[in-house]
Amino acid sequence: MEQRKLKKLLSEMSLREKIGQMIQLTGIYFDDDAVLTGEVGEDQPPQWVTQYAGSVLGMIGAEKLRGIQKKYVEAHPHHIPLLFMADVIHGCRTIAPIPLGQACSFHPELVRKMAGHAAAESASEGIRATFSPMIDVSRDPRWGRIMESFGEDPFLNGVMGTAMLRGYQGEEGKDPAGNKKIPESGIAGCLKHFAGYGAVSAGREYNDVEISQRTFREQYLKPFRMAMHADPAMVMTAFNAVDRRPVSGNKELLEGTLREEMGFSGTVISDWGSIGQLEEQNVVSSQKEAAEAAVRAGVDIDMMSPAYMFHLEELVKEGSIPTSLIDKSAWNVLVMKNRLGLFENPFAGMQGEEPLSAEAKKTALALACESSVLLKNDDMLPLKPERKVFWGGPYVESRELLSRWAIFGRYDDVETIREVLKARKMPVRFLPECEILTEEERRLWQAENCRIQDSGEQDKEIPEICVNSGKQYATLDEIEPEDTVVLVLGEHEAQSGEAASRAFLDLPEGQQKFFDAVAGRTSHIVTVILSGRPLDIRKIAEKSQAVLFVWRPGTMGAEAVVRLVYGEETPSGKLSVSIPWCVGQVPVSYWDVKTGHRMVETNPENRFTSRYMDIPNEPLYPFGFGLSYTEFTITPPIFEKQEREDKIDISCKVKNVGEVPGAEVVQCYVETLCAPVVRPDRELIRFRKIFLLPGEEQEVKFTVNRKELAFYGENMELIDGDVQFRFIVGNSSRSEAGSILYAF
Amino acid sequence: MEQRKLKKLLSEMSLREKIGQMIQLTGIYFDDDAVLTGEVGEDQPPQWVTQYAGSVLGMIGAEKLRGIQKKYVEAHPHHIPLLFMADVIHGCRTIAPIPLGQACSFHPELVRKMAGHAAAESASEGIRATFSPMIDVSRDPRWGRIMESFGEDPFLNGVMGTAMLRGYQGEEGKDPAGNKKIPESGIAGCLKHFAGYGAVSAGREYNDVEISQRTFREQYLKPFRMAMHADPAMVMTAFNAVDRRPVSGNKELLEGTLREEMGFSGTVISDWGSIGQLEEQNVVSSQKEAAEAAVRAGVDIDMMSPAYMFHLEELVKEGSIPTSLIDKSAWNVLVMKNRLGLFENPFAGMQGEEPLSAEAKKTALALACESSVLLKNDDMLPLKPERKVFWGGPYVESRELLSRWAIFGRYDDVETIREVLKARKMPVRFLPECEILTEEERRLWQAENCRIQDSGEQDKEIPEICVNSGKQYATLDEIEPEDTVVLVLGEHEAQSGEAASRAFLDLPEGQQKFFDAVAGRTSHIVTVILSGRPLDIRKIAEKSQAVLFVWRPGTMGAEAVVRLVYGEETPSGKLSVSIPWCVGQVPVSYWDVKTGHRMVETNPENRFTSRYMDIPNEPLYPFGFGLSYTEFTITPPIFEKQEREDKIDISCKVKNVGEVPGAEVVQCYVETLCAPVVRPDRELIRFRKIFLLPGEEQEVKFTVNRKELAFYGENMELIDGDVQFRFIVGNSSRSEAGSILYAF
Repeated sequence: MEQRKLKKLLSEMSLREKIGQMIQLTGIYFDDDAVLTGEVGEDQPPQWVTQYAGSVLGMIGAEKLRGIQKKYVEAHPHHIPLLFMADVIHGCRTIAPIPLGQACSFHPELVRKMAGHAAAESASEGIRATFSPMIDVSRDPRWGRIMESFGEDPFLNGVMGTAMLRGYQGEEGKDPAGNKKIPESGIAGCLKHFAGYGAVSAGREYNDVEISQRTFREQYLKPFRMAMHADPAMVMTAFNAVDRRPVSGNKELLEGTLREEMGFSGTVISDWGSIGQLEEQNVVSSQKEAAEAAVRAGVDIDMMSPAYMFHLEELVKEGSIPTSLIDKSAWNVLVMKNRLGLFENPFAGMQGEEPLSAEAKKTALALACESSVLLKNDDMLPLKPERKVFWGGPYVESRELLSRWAIFGRYDDVETIREVLKARKMPVRFLPECEILTEEERRLWQAENCRIQDSGEQDKEIPEICVNSGKQYATLDEIEPEDTVVLVLGEHEAQSGEAASRAFLDLPEGQQKFFDAVAGRTSHIVTVILSGRPLDIRKIAEKSQAVLFVWRPGTMGAEAVVRLVYGEETPSGKLSVSIPWCVGQVPVSYWDVKTGHRMVETNPENRFTSRYMDIPNEPLYPFGFGLSYTEFTITPPIFEKQEREDKIDISCKVKNVGEVPGAEVVQCYVETLCAPVVRPDRELIRFRKIFLLPGEEQEVKFTVNRKELAFYGENMELIDGDVQFRFIVGNSSRSEAGSILYAF
Repeated sequence: MEQRKLKKLLSEMSLREKIGQMIQLTGIYFDDDAVLTGEVGEDQPPQWVTQYAGSVLGMIGAEKLRGIQKKYVEAHPHHIPLLFMADVIHGCRTIAPIPLGQACSFHPELVRKMAGHAAAESASEGIRATFSPMIDVSRDPRWGRIMESFGEDPFLNGVMGTAMLRGYQGEEGKDPAGNKKIPESGIAGCLKHFAGYGAVSAGREYNDVEISQRTFREQYLKPFRMAMHADPAMVMTAFNAVDRRPVSGNKELLEGTLREEMGFSGTVISDWGSIGQLEEQNVVSSQKEAAEAAVRAGVDIDMMSPAYMFHLEELVKEGSIPTSLIDKSAWNVLVMKNRLGLFENPFAGMQGEEPLSAEAKKTALALACESSVLLKNDDMLPLKPERKVFWGGPYVESRELLSRWAIFGRYDDVETIREVLKARKMPVRFLPECEILTEEERRLWQAENCRIQDSGEQDKEIPEICVNSGKQYATLDEIEPEDTVVLVLGEHEAQSGEAASRAFLDLPEGQQKFFDAVAGRTSHIVTVILSGRPLDIRKIAEKSQAVLFVWRPGTMGAEAVVRLVYGEETPSGKLSVSIPWCVGQVPVSYWDVKTGHRMVETNPENRFTSRYMDIPNEPLYPFGFGLSYTEFTITPPIFEKQEREDKIDISCKVKNVGEVPGAEVVQCYVETLCAPVVRPDRELIRFRKIFLLPGEEQEVKFTVNRKELAFYGENMELIDGDVQFRFIVGNSSRSEAGSILYAF
């Protein structure tokens, strides 16, 4: 629709219609038979709200949504269509690895492609907007939502967020009227959570955030600044406060930083109930005040709090809120709908569900392989296919390779590792059952019904774990000291995701015992770990000859694990987040700022340094680290074309000096050598994943814009000159192939 | 000396003499035979520095210091005396409990008294200034220095810091010339560390501090604002940066906040090497730049970095630093010396050492008793003297009841628990030996030589632990299920203090095994725990019928433990810091700010609240908590004299309804009900310790100044009106005898 027509439409809408665009309800009020007739009760929205609410949350299904849309559009005075949104976080029906895993691929093009499949699957079933990507810098493994992020690095979050957003929203184009256009197979993306949520104190979900202004602006906002280039349709406000000012009522952040400074022009949506929550945070004393604060701060859509639906109309009528603010927010929502082509076709993209496409499965498989990180390998992997090995652990027989955030993923689409092995006729034997969780742990983690529930699929059954009745197992006694055992262990899917903070990072108790029992029989153990977060795997790693961390790998996880273990694929994943030595070491990340009293390598015993006495300072495995089945050399970096004023060109060569094809992630970090303020130890500024055949060599060029090196000075002024930097090239945050100095 | 004369003196001093006042060296350059002849080498100060350095660090001994002083004063062109400083942290010769324990007494008068003894003992041996009190708000038990603080609460730090300072500096008086005067038996105190050091990231010593501006100013600066009223002679700069700006080069903080805003008029001293450390923090590129930054920021004395001694003279001569800044700093040091009466008598107070006085021991004993916190008591304590019990654990026979910060304390002055029990002829038996640390732990913790070493006492021998040869022990097999066992367990003194961060908070391994072995024989266990920090005592507490936490109790610790266990004294200590559920819960404190998604007591199973799934949100034992052998009732608070405009008067009654005399700490907290910014859940604003006989009742009145309720608004403006508060009275941070609302 042309801009002019859209403006005319806005001008003709009633106050309630406009406010309707600012309200999002769950699907519960929109079932097939009662689309417009949600009960009006104490906790129910007023009837006009169910008639005018502009968007719906959490439903799926072409037929169902087509029916709802049809009735809604017909009944709406101006025939404005609904927008169906849902949490499509790492795939819709075809489930990819969790984002924390995807980030380990260091392969943004693959991430973009996978998001494209997710968008197509979503759109075909009626969903045209998702609450993804999450680009919260996340460095506390206690926090369950770390799984949904791209890890501890600001730059990596920015790159991956941008890639995922482009996958969702398609190639940016324009419609004939000149409006930005998301194709019918695309969906609107949403950068979240703006901002700082990843720093929740003590890793406790929804907790306060204690962070310096500088770290907030430099590290936590950076991914948002980067992803703005992909023109996100939405940004979601974070639950937390920043410097004790809750974001959903923070005009300085939402109008000043987000819109004016970063140039965001889309729709700002609250997190679930985050506007109403302002009352709990005690910065307002009623839901009405909450509504006023949020509208003034610039929150366009209230997701499921009572604030807007019960109070916005009154606030406007009594003159507390100018109509112009309502117009602005309603306009933002209309523009988004227009960008999705909904005015031309409210059913745009609703093709109906199809079986998982071969292409989507192929991408999910590639991503599962490339997300897996080989952490340890004492000449153990890959296993020869003819080698007789035992496989054991709960995930050998489980279809639970998805996650709590794979709300539309289906276990039926998941093969088990056992099935994959059997199909290949591998000469393997299986160890006896081991449950993912003990009974007590299952209760604690509410594991029976752990998915983030959405109205569309409330009654989905979760299958029994390890239904092995009638199968033949080896006993542990049959393991001889020279035997090789592959153990596939890990967290339950209920243990990560939203509202899944852990104070302990151990493997579930039964699995730890199972591991110990196996380790008592043989030392030839390959441990494959599924997890939504870094775990405390120090002791597991000590007793294993190889450790492969596969996160929650998704629909194609079993195939990926088998391919990697047997060398059909070469691991190329690099950690997107540090795996800490133990929970007492967190938060820890490679970019922690410089301290005085640094540990001196020549005198590690000196206790008067910034260290723990009982553990090392370094995490067990650092950011950017990951092994391969082949070996690479990287030459020290050199400058090219140093004469360019605004750009710095750095190049090096990477060579596969091993015997199998593989991929190396060449990483470029920058260190500020001296500045008026304390700076991070180093910061990732570029990376490139290079696939090489044995003996093959390739030049890698990184072009860095000088302005990317700018940082905040003592008075938050941008410093972009008179500083010396060191560019470091390597294959992890703790390796240096070499470095070069640069001053500007 | 009159101000006028002092000014004249300053005007006559050479540049080197002035700079000398700004340099502090260790005693190594001032031994008896070579006072003024420190070698000049690469790492040695220039000769003029050893001649003119204004203060010396870490020496003790009247005779030695008298000799040094005499030679120094005679040789000094203007006969300006040296000032001898040392770390007198919780007692000089008579050692009191660590400050974290002293705070648990909630008895500031006792803390003041004890500091008075410490001052007298110090002065008599030549020390006239100490680097204490430390009033860093400290809530991370991983941090070894937590022992030196008064815990997690800003108000308690402020009150205790003020009390200790008054104890050191004596009653503020004036000399005949009108100058402020510290008596000859007093010493100059030093508030440290200014500021924010208690928030070191991940509890790792000397680490960065990530904290919001608001929390920094409201919570972390509050104790400093409070203690300014006691007119501290010195303030020490913290190692850390605040918002990435290192304090030792931070003029805004040192001149703006500390001097202008808080009105500090004394001497600013760096922490050990913290000026030189600016180079390591990369905010300057040389020691010369470090010196310039620190002088400009207002650091008067450089403690042991090369910056001032090697570069200040040059900086002034080349015009980079105006002489006025040097004059200002030298002046501050001269004023401090004058305040100590050193110009009249450079040997003021140097009486020579005497045996520990009965009065000092009495105060130390009272403080050890009142610092101990009874955490659990299932009808177990006090034990009847005639009861036959076993005593066991490494601290029954150990004299190591002091701490790494008791650098002048002597083990010879410490009685063991066994000796105290024997002297009383208690019918007790002793369990076999158990070492404090295993061999491996001893190496890890450098336990053989753990004291913070100062030049004066480098060679002090630390006695063998548990030298029990030839003694008769029961075996564990002799413990019958009905027997009672008192176990005295805990950390080694090497495990806390500066440079003693721990990632694990467990008891040492051998002791845990010892405990488990005993718990396998009987369930009637009383556990007494010595520690420099909160430990993870969850499992110990579960299996004990009583738990008494005595921190590191000092010279009189053994006597205190025996008195408390047998009910000769009633425990009255309250926790100055939360004891967390486990290390994965930290940082946690009672004043954590309000969050949304709060846990609802009626629906604790709801996972979508701010909680951990695997542990409770609440610490194992909260701030302010502690049991007694008697019981108290507290009435709900009422207002008195509400008409006063600037003050609020709150009163309640406390009654001893039990059967033995005891003391209750009545605590008054304030909660902000609604504000433009998120506020702490509650904040301690007053407390009073009340000693009551059985049946006795007493009224407690708290007067709160209205301005104490002010807090920072959205733009850091002070809010002091239009807000509603709730005053809560109780006997811990988590108990409510009642509350009242107040608006202003």
